[in-house]
Amino acid sequence: MQALVLEEKLRLSLRDFPIEREETVGPHDVRIKLHTVGICGSDVHYYTHGGAGIFQVKAPMILGHEASGTVIETGGAVTTLKVGDRVCMEPGIPDPQSRATRMGQYNVDPAVRFWATPPVHGVLRPSVVHPAAFTFKLPDNVSFAEGAMVEPLAVGVHAAIKADVKPGDNALVIGAGPIGLVTALAALAAGCARVFVADVDDTKLALAAGLGPITPINVSREDATAAILKETEGWGVEIVFECSGNARAAAGVFDPLAPSGRVVFIGSQQGDVAYNVGKAMVREARVEHVFRYAHVFARCVAMLSSGAIDVKPLITRRFDFADSVRAFEIAASAPPGEVKMQIELPQ
Amino acid sequence: MQALVLEEKLRLSLRDFPIEREETVGPHDVRIKLHTVGICGSDVHYYTHGGAGIFQVKAPMILGHEASGTVIETGGAVTTLKVGDRVCMEPGIPDPQSRATRMGQYNVDPAVRFWATPPVHGVLRPSVVHPAAFTFKLPDNVSFAEGAMVEPLAVGVHAAIKADVKPGDNALVIGAGPIGLVTALAALAAGCARVFVADVDDTKLALAAGLGPITPINVSREDATAAILKETEGWGVEIVFECSGNARAAAGVFDPLAPSGRVVFIGSQQGDVAYNVGKAMVREARVEHVFRYAHVFARCVAMLSSGAIDVKPLITRRFDFADSVRAFEIAASAPPGEVKMQIELPQ
Amino acid sequence: MQALVLEEKLRLSLRDFPIEREETVGPHDVRIKLHTVGICGSDVHYYTHGGAGIFQVKAPMILGHEASGTVIETGGAVTTLKVGDRVCMEPGIPDPQSRATRMGQYNVDPAVRFWATPPVHGVLRPSVVHPAAFTFKLPDNVSFAEGAMVEPLAVGVHAAIKADVKPGDNALVIGAGPIGLVTALAALAAGCARVFVADVDDTKLALAAGLGPITPINVSREDATAAILKETEGWGVEIVFECSGNARAAAGVFDPLAPSGRVVFIGSQQGDVAYNVGKAMVREARVEHVFRYAHVFARCVAMLSSGAIDVKPLITRRFDFADSVRAFEIAASAPPGEVKMQIELPQ
Amino acid sequence: MQALVLEEKLRLSLRDFPIEREETVGPHDVRIKLHTVGICGSDVHYYTHGGAGIFQVKAPMILGHEASGTVIETGGAVTTLKVGDRVCMEPGIPDPQSRATRMGQYNVDPAVRFWATPPVHGVLRPSVVHPAAFTFKLPDNVSFAEGAMVEPLAVGVHAAIKADVKPGDNALVIGAGPIGLVTALAALAAGCARVFVADVDDTKLALAAGLGPITPINVSREDATAAILKETEGWGVEIVFECSGNARAAAGVFDPLAPSGRVVFIGSQQGDVAYNVGKAMVREARVEHVFRYAHVFARCVAMLSSGAIDVKPLITRRFDFADSVRAFEIAASAPPGEVKMQIELPQ
Repeated sequence: MQALVLEEKLRLSLRDFPIEREETVGPHDVRIKLHTVGICGSDVHYYTHGGAGIFQVKAPMILGHEASGTVIETGGAVTTLKVGDRVCMEPGIPDPQSRATRMGQYNVDPAVRFWATPPVHGVLRPSVVHPAAFTFKLPDNVSFAEGAMVEPLAVGVHAAIKADVKPGDNALVIGAGPIGLVTALAALAAGCARVFVADVDDTKLALAAGLGPITPINVSREDATAAILKETEGWGVEIVFECSGNARAAAGVFDPLAPSGRVVFIGSQQGDVAYNVGKAMVREARVEHVFRYAHVFARCVAMLSSGAIDVKPLITRRFDFADSVRAFEIAASAPPGEVKMQIELPQ
Repeated sequence: MQALVLEEKLRLSLRDFPIEREETVGPHDVRIKLHTVGICGSDVHYYTHGGAGIFQVKAPMILGHEASGTVIETGGAVTTLKVGDRVCMEPGIPDPQSRATRMGQYNVDPAVRFWATPPVHGVLRPSVVHPAAFTFKLPDNVSFAEGAMVEPLAVGVHAAIKADVKPGDNALVIGAGPIGLVTALAALAAGCARVFVADVDDTKLALAAGLGPITPINVSREDATAAILKETEGWGVEIVFECSGNARAAAGVFDPLAPSGRVVFIGSQQGDVAYNVGKAMVREARVEHVFRYAHVFARCVAMLSSGAIDVKPLITRRFDFADSVRAFEIAASAPPGEVKMQIELPQ
Repeated sequence: MQALVLEEKLRLSLRDFPIEREETVGPHDVRIKLHTVGICGSDVHYYTHGGAGIFQVKAPMILGHEASGTVIETGGAVTTLKVGDRVCMEPGIPDPQSRATRMGQYNVDPAVRFWATPPVHGVLRPSVVHPAAFTFKLPDNVSFAEGAMVEPLAVGVHAAIKADVKPGDNALVIGAGPIGLVTALAALAAGCARVFVADVDDTKLALAAGLGPITPINVSREDATAAILKETEGWGVEIVFECSGNARAAAGVFDPLAPSGRVVFIGSQQGDVAYNVGKAMVREARVEHVFRYAHVFARCVAMLSSGAIDVKPLITRRFDFADSVRAFEIAASAPPGEVKMQIELPQ
Repeated sequence: MQALVLEEKLRLSLRDFPIEREETVGPHDVRIKLHTVGICGSDVHYYTHGGAGIFQVKAPMILGHEASGTVIETGGAVTTLKVGDRVCMEPGIPDPQSRATRMGQYNVDPAVRFWATPPVHGVLRPSVVHPAAFTFKLPDNVSFAEGAMVEPLAVGVHAAIKADVKPGDNALVIGAGPIGLVTALAALAAGCARVFVADVDDTKLALAAGLGPITPINVSREDATAAILKETEGWGVEIVFECSGNARAAAGVFDPLAPSGRVVFIGSQQGDVAYNVGKAMVREARVEHVFRYAHVFARCVAMLSSGAIDVKPLITRRFDFADSVRAFEIAASAPPGEVKMQIELPQ
């Protein structure tokens, strides 16, 4: 009955934690035995920094929010799931009374409770109680490991929806980390004919290039805008996805953009970005900003099951739950070549 | 210097035709040597019926409008193409002064001149002069045969754009003829997780099932709505593409449709359709209607080149130009199992 | 403590009804003393026909769903309203667990409970308990009578949103009944430069013509399409709102429609409509269907308060609650010149 | 036969200019006798600075691009206009061969030729030849003065279209200059229930407050965000229109913005803007950028004619053509209280 607890900045322990015994299954809830939990950059950031922005770890908190598992108990009003169903879970629980949630935009509800975001506990623990509405059945041909990839994939798919990808668009994804790569996959699945991925890490770019019609651009050696204009007869890409969080990269999003193009900001920025309104105007650019995702988990599961998207190449390493602390230490060292590391809980 | 001429209803001849000697290359035009021309249902309809609706064949007319070829001459102001470029061509030439064309919706310009639509000649002939703006270069990895498939594919891609496909949608395509199949391919490329294709012809359904995550439904044996509701947990499909032109099928488009779903009418109807406003209302359905396509040829070429769409399985038979008349006779017999038949001109 | 009860088809009584004593105020609810209730065509239809479609009156039911009143009690968790607030109410209560509701489209939730729709009681009674989330505060400059007009106005505003009105569009509204007139007002408020209203009743058309830049067309004397094409230099209207419920009118919606135009079906139809797919195709028409409304009550209140919309000319007659039965008898006689009749409850 | 010529920075002369004798009327053109020309901030900027960005005045150039007049000659193919028609003109002539123009987005065509933008002459001169497609007939109830306001109004209407105003939205317009005011008018016409206008000039704010349901905010005394949040129960405005060109104002666009809100950048910025991606993300803000306008002149004329928009209060001063130089000197002094100054040519 152990959980991976962030006691405080830089101190993790695998220990008994009382939370689960307190959780009761409401009529619309299910209890899920956890199977696989992915390590997200935000988990690592809480570990190494003890917080992020307004969210500071002030008390021991269980980490982990990219999760799959098995239903082991269902509430009385649940009709869509049954004990034994293999599932993945959307980690944010919105307030049904909030105005944004009622409008269907629950991700921008300020009252949303999100796993592993202080003071809400994550799911690197044996089981969790969760609303059935935010729990999604995995078809037989989608593994627990893939199920635990739905959460990061949802970010990319949500961004692709916001970008209003049309079949045959060309896109640029800035940043080849896990979010950049799921965004590239989502952009292709959403209709892009071709995706350019820009980064400085040749290992990640090589992995990206193997995922589909993706052209890697190492921006330490090559100018991305020049490369794109050359490949698109001077027109540019219809969409730029900013996934790097790098302020300088963000300042250049309009340069390779085609007339009427769209920019989507996905990566978090530490400070303000230098924004050239004039460059955006002459293109009549549209700029979208995403905050997590809404209503896309079922879509992601369907695309994994049908083969429209394959996330398996992104899962580069797995750990036993007993090795969780070491897994985080490795993740914190930002090992080259690793994309998504996952932890498997004992079954 | 021969052309395939529809002399009148049911009478085709391969004969010399004076048109080409009269065509001059304007500053924004190119002259193209034809290579491959697909046989479209509308070509066959003109052959067997001598007309369609307001378009009646009153004088000998050259058939064919699904075409690829090679640029052999360029106008003085043409910068995007050069002699030797392998190309495919968009067969409608709009009037730049029309209000719809200026708004970018040139396909609904009543003044558009469209190949092989009386009194405009088609391109089953050695060469044609065409605006460079409607001529699209084929990359090396796209064959002439694939290039001649861009025209029908454009119908499907335009319909998928109108349908506003979002990644993870499920769709139903009614009709497994050439247009149904290119629409299914376009729907998948545009993000559908899964496409149901309904028809009564097992051969075509088997071909459809091999094109991707497509579930065939033989509606002579199975109720499409019941099948879809079962597979989607009662929710229905987000999109229905009506490609059959069958009035009874068209009357049922709302039955398998999910709340807020979209219907796209692509197949022409002979008479009025029985339309149930109430069924559309309880779903708040959106119904779109397409007329050919606009601005999608370059998108199609890009997707063929990148591998996002593969039309090769739809090309089921090729003929030499010398056998054109026979090709049309065969096409008119609606041979089971044939999807797209193409004619190759001598090079 | 009386209510207006539809005992059965064609039999109304004003009598004591036990329901209110049973209603308790939950934490997110308010109790409202009713002030004004408008008579809707659907109320009258239940009175004269005893039902509508699948909704049949099988037990005595209180009528009325266009309502305003005063908050007299608030639940413990209510923060947006207080006792004494003047309010109007959205009459449908969706199931927060339904998939459509979670997506923000609660109006197409099949489980929605709607006032005065069997077996749910309406509000021609002293008070009602209602969720605060569906109760909207009226500013001082919006009267109870205007507040009770928000419900029908919401239908028009929702339709205008679905129509995607752009500033300067021209529109045709078919039908000059209450819904046609609120739709015309909403279309103008949403940006239409000019609205044509078609009907056969000169009294209603005269009233319409006084509401703004509205051109009345009496279709018993004049061809609407010919009149519109003449006034728009042959282009047609960008939007057609079908509010008549007349099958023949519905069959003609594409005739006056401009290229890329939009049609919105608002009026219920008794049977199937003859639908000309070809006419829709050559225009690439978009057809939308509305079902009540979602998320527009606050918008309507704001526009009434700012003066963007004035519904007062539509309120043609008021009755005391004691005269409710007579009010319905009059309404059932479809008196010429009456648009909206309202009932005031004793305060 | 005189024109108002900017000889060089800060030197204007009213003198004979040879251009007109050279202009011939092509088949799709009309010749227009100018009547009224408004003075735009860009005209004044060319006068005071000798250029703007990449557009530098290197040779004498006629000023003026906000114009109305009378058709005095028509090309052979013109069917929509005749001699004697009162008209206003869209001052940019796109290249029909450009990719953006063909897509209907002619305003972002880099090859567009725009009046009074070096090296293209403006229209403060007796007559001009212009394409009929960009010349719009004025109805009898729209004056020449109003006709010359269509050009600036078009900026506001285009911005309102980009903002996707929905009926009942609240908006903030930053800046109460001519563009801010036409944007406020357009936002109201497009459906806003209420518009906040922020500026530091009480005279302009007072004028704004008289134009409709507009709430002025003097940001030298009051915090706009605090005022808006108070008036909107903490929700914010659905739309922010940045019309000030002020970098600090532009940096604050997300503060008063509601969840899923839209920002439109209209005012030109001298340098980069400090852009807070995080604030945009938590709201999932959409940011649009406009460049002039496209396809809105006819819409503006229709709204002026129907009374949906009244620009007359914005015309604060008129000059005879003979006083043009003085008019520019006054305009350059930025007189308080002046919004739009216009020049009338001799008829």
